[in-house]
Amino acid sequence: MYPPSIEKLIHHFSKFPTIGPRTATRFAFYCLNAPEKEIKELMSALQEVRNSLSFCKICFRSIAKEKEFCSVCANRGRERDVICVVEKEADLLAIEKTNEYNGIYFILGGTISPLKKEDFKKIRAKELKERIENHKDHGLPKIKEVIIATNQNTEGEATANYVSRILTSLNIKHTRLGRGLPTGGELEYADEDTLTHSLKGRK
Amino acid sequence: MYPPSIEKLIHHFSKFPTIGPRTATRFAFYCLNAPEKEIKELMSALQEVRNSLSFCKICFRSIAKEKEFCSVCANRGRERDVICVVEKEADLLAIEKTNEYNGIYFILGGTISPLKKEDFKKIRAKELKERIENHKDHGLPKIKEVIIATNQNTEGEATANYVSRILTSLNIKHTRLGRGLPTGGELEYADEDTLTHSLKGRK
Repeated sequence: MYPPSIEKLIHHFSKFPTIGPRTATRFAFYCLNAPEKEIKELMSALQEVRNSLSFCKICFRSIAKEKEFCSVCANRGRERDVICVVEKEADLLAIEKTNEYNGIYFILGGTISPLKKEDFKKIRAKELKERIENHKDHGLPKIKEVIIATNQNTEGEATANYVSRILTSLNIKHTRLGRGLPTGGELEYADEDTLTHSLKGRK
Repeated sequence: MYPPSIEKLIHHFSKFPTIGPRTATRFAFYCLNAPEKEIKELMSALQEVRNSLSFCKICFRSIAKEKEFCSVCANRGRERDVICVVEKEADLLAIEKTNEYNGIYFILGGTISPLKKEDFKKIRAKELKERIENHKDHGLPKIKEVIIATNQNTEGEATANYVSRILTSLNIKHTRLGRGLPTGGELEYADEDTLTHSLKGRK
């Protein structure tokens, strides 16, 4: 057994996403051994993130605490009747980079694992429902479409199905991102599922 | 781009062992979203590890700050003329669990990558050299043997070779851990290198 304070730190690092006890142990010893300056800066960065940031009231993107809405939601030029539901902020940034989407967003803040049913508490399902029900309260127009833009993996699929059920119950038109061969993708190396979707979605 | 405070936190998490920018980003958002209590406890655990712990003056194992030596080095019943050199504290604990070793230890605090030559600054090579040169100053007997117990992988090998060169220059007898099939290991699935070592080390 390690000293109790190390064990405590391992326990907290084990709660980080994708981190098991072994990596958490490496993190704890890294923090014990790192130069004083490094750890001071890490702690002040942690403090700053907690103190200076808040979430956009519409899409839950991280924004400066003094603001109410993010740059996308505050932009009057965006179509406010189309909502793109993404897992995390990185996905929002990826879609923004395409310059192809002019609607607004909703960040779920996670995914649902098909095996852990309690995971649905970890995503903003309740908030999404409220958001759609109270869409007009924000001075926004009637929702025309919700695009479910979760990842094309098991968790993303499970999450999309869960979100889809919510939207169906609210009678909201919703779509999924198109599936097929990625740009630069070669037929020879594509899996059957991708090819099947690619064939079905042919133009 | 994320808000500057998030970017700063990502930068610090990227320095954690085995962590790249993608996982560091997940960590930063986890820290932004986690309940206040969780982050407060993480920060106080971090602080406690830094404030309450120190290193054993002989083997560099983590110990309470008010102590000078760890339980192994302080134990007069241990053979103080045999030193086992390990990469990290977890390896020391693994060897202690066997109840087969009665010597003392030296924790390197890392490994050398064969590709990054500057890595040798990250392990306690200088401290190991000093430790062996000043072994008697600690009231310890002449060193009979140093066992190099690094991992059997590329980094472990490179580290062992580096340590071996130091020990040779100091004219100290040193050995490596025996290699072969692990308990429960099946011949059919063993790689050639393991089998070769297993054959050479047959009894």
